[in-house]
Amino acid sequence: MGYVKWSYPVLEHFCYDVFRAFGFSEKESKEIEDVLLTADLFGIESHGMQRMVRYHKGIEKGTIHPKEKPEVVFETPVSAVVDGHNGMGQLISIFAMNKAIEKAKTTGIGIVTVRESNHFGIAGYYAKMASDQGLLGMACTNSEAIMVPTFGKKAMLGSNPIAVAMPADPYPFLFDCSTTVVTRGKLEMYNKMNKPLPQGWALDANGHESTQAPTVLENIVSKRGGGIMPLGGNKEVSGSHKGYGYGMLCELFSSIFSMGVTSEKCCTFPDKTGICHGFAAINPEIFGNPEEIKAHLSEYLEALRESPKAEGESQIYTHGEKEIFAEKDRRENGIPVNDNTMAELANLCAYLKLDFHSYFKDYELPGDGTFFTGNY
Amino acid sequence: MGYVKWSYPVLEHFCYDVFRAFGFSEKESKEIEDVLLTADLFGIESHGMQRMVRYHKGIEKGTIHPKEKPEVVFETPVSAVVDGHNGMGQLISIFAMNKAIEKAKTTGIGIVTVRESNHFGIAGYYAKMASDQGLLGMACTNSEAIMVPTFGKKAMLGSNPIAVAMPADPYPFLFDCSTTVVTRGKLEMYNKMNKPLPQGWALDANGHESTQAPTVLENIVSKRGGGIMPLGGNKEVSGSHKGYGYGMLCELFSSIFSMGVTSEKCCTFPDKTGICHGFAAINPEIFGNPEEIKAHLSEYLEALRESPKAEGESQIYTHGEKEIFAEKDRRENGIPVNDNTMAELANLCAYLKLDFHSYFKDYELPGDGTFFTGNY
Repeated sequence: MGYVKWSYPVLEHFCYDVFRAFGFSEKESKEIEDVLLTADLFGIESHGMQRMVRYHKGIEKGTIHPKEKPEVVFETPVSAVVDGHNGMGQLISIFAMNKAIEKAKTTGIGIVTVRESNHFGIAGYYAKMASDQGLLGMACTNSEAIMVPTFGKKAMLGSNPIAVAMPADPYPFLFDCSTTVVTRGKLEMYNKMNKPLPQGWALDANGHESTQAPTVLENIVSKRGGGIMPLGGNKEVSGSHKGYGYGMLCELFSSIFSMGVTSEKCCTFPDKTGICHGFAAINPEIFGNPEEIKAHLSEYLEALRESPKAEGESQIYTHGEKEIFAEKDRRENGIPVNDNTMAELANLCAYLKLDFHSYFKDYELPGDGTFFTGNY
Repeated sequence: MGYVKWSYPVLEHFCYDVFRAFGFSEKESKEIEDVLLTADLFGIESHGMQRMVRYHKGIEKGTIHPKEKPEVVFETPVSAVVDGHNGMGQLISIFAMNKAIEKAKTTGIGIVTVRESNHFGIAGYYAKMASDQGLLGMACTNSEAIMVPTFGKKAMLGSNPIAVAMPADPYPFLFDCSTTVVTRGKLEMYNKMNKPLPQGWALDANGHESTQAPTVLENIVSKRGGGIMPLGGNKEVSGSHKGYGYGMLCELFSSIFSMGVTSEKCCTFPDKTGICHGFAAINPEIFGNPEEIKAHLSEYLEALRESPKAEGESQIYTHGEKEIFAEKDRRENGIPVNDNTMAELANLCAYLKLDFHSYFKDYELPGDGTFFTGNY
């Protein structure tokens, strides 16, 4: 599997045109494009261009409704419930996070829970929206069931990421992780590379540990059982119940508070996914002087980075630091996109009647241009 | 190491008298006793009677100041900052959580951050205070550094537990876990049993994995390096950076927002520990009908418990369920206390001039009554 690098403006232009062609407005297309390309800039390949095919298929199948707008169905000065009406997840989420930010600026705290949405890309994008404005931001989502609870054999929770961002110098704290030990995207990578999975990642249909990526992925798609372990594996001795618990926190703030669809039922409907999100923004001013708090955090983050390294290791990262480095590199040297994804983008162009080669000049699809593009 | 069982009223009476003898008021003594015995009732042995020695030593050494009262030093309708003035952690925490609950009942949300406190016992106690009143409750704390960040060799974060409770039927959701893979108490248990530690728990002074409980514990106490791994181990492939990230969330809501002492400096002072806490209460009414939300959560928890079990397993738990069963058993059959702990309680009685045998009738301390009682 080869990679080709494209400059940020090339992908930006392409991505924008794709969503315009799907019928989104200029502003909407720009918003969706920014969420997706931020993932690629941050080095989170699974959630950028590689994810375009999922939105393509969602719109084609009718689980994403491009014309629908999010609606506030319940509201207080510190909270809101948003019904996404099964529109595009990124647009619903930006709308909801902006609501949380607005409330945090007025009352100090805003919590917004969302039902009837769709995949929203990287959770960190929305947490960062708040930290860009001097606030602590939190974002979480449920998703199609993939996490098997401790001692179970059926996936009952999603990959359920939690993201938290907070202003700091020289760069913000930005934590963004699934509550499963890894995401499905990682299993797909091992599958494409034809490699056995590391120990402690996946379960077969009987609930036993498995290192066979193809079987595990097939079982997930066909809902035959098995899936991915919570952070902490599948035993209490390694903390399985803890990862399962963090996954539950996502459900509380997304599907439970919004009276939405819990993960075990997400993506089982013909006309919607039912995915739910939770967003929060907290103004540090409600605890004192925001500049002092920011300096206090910055000092602690620096102490962590400067603390003694394990023998053989050269760097201790604070959360969000790798993304900063990745963005710098990708803006300078281009964003790598793999050939499989390029084939998916070519399919997408054919579907939308866009001229693939007008964006990706001189790029020749390897072989006959036909690739395994996964099950979406 | 043998165990002896005592009825709840025996331990309640003893514990109350101990804190009265330390100079706490009737109300204060009752509050501290309830936090400690709730841990024992819930089966969290490490945080009940076994922990008495730590409070004893803290008061003796002067890091816990029994006469000091918590003070609100900053306040908004949705938040407060509490200075604990290095008083007893349980009293400061009950005070702070009550403040959060009061605010949640008025504005919908209350977040209270606390500095200059002490060990507060089980985080779940305070989260449950909110759920007992129909609210979602959250509690977290930092502590003496014991978690080594990913790729490090020096402990820079505490065991940093996060607890979340929310009303449900037939029993509430109650999640309460350290963000390290295990707590120090578990290492001490393996040490007492003279058993090698499981893989993936601890690091030696050079940052390499170690299964040697005595060495790891000695290194921790003497601050020679090493400690316990975050949830997810010490490698990114198993999600080490995630556990480290959850540990960071505790710091944000405890030491950072309160401008308090971060974990790497906690317990390095002669006259205080500097431990910080964070508490939050959220009223489900800010998202709609609390009864409907509760029923929605109860249904999901039931679906999890009823979901298919892994081959060889007979039960899937939801968080807080084990504690319910443990409490029922211990109220009926007594609370087990190990002989080492009994020796510590005997020492404590001698210190406070209380008559050990008036509480623990017919109990004979094994051997000469001298035990290894750890380093506190």
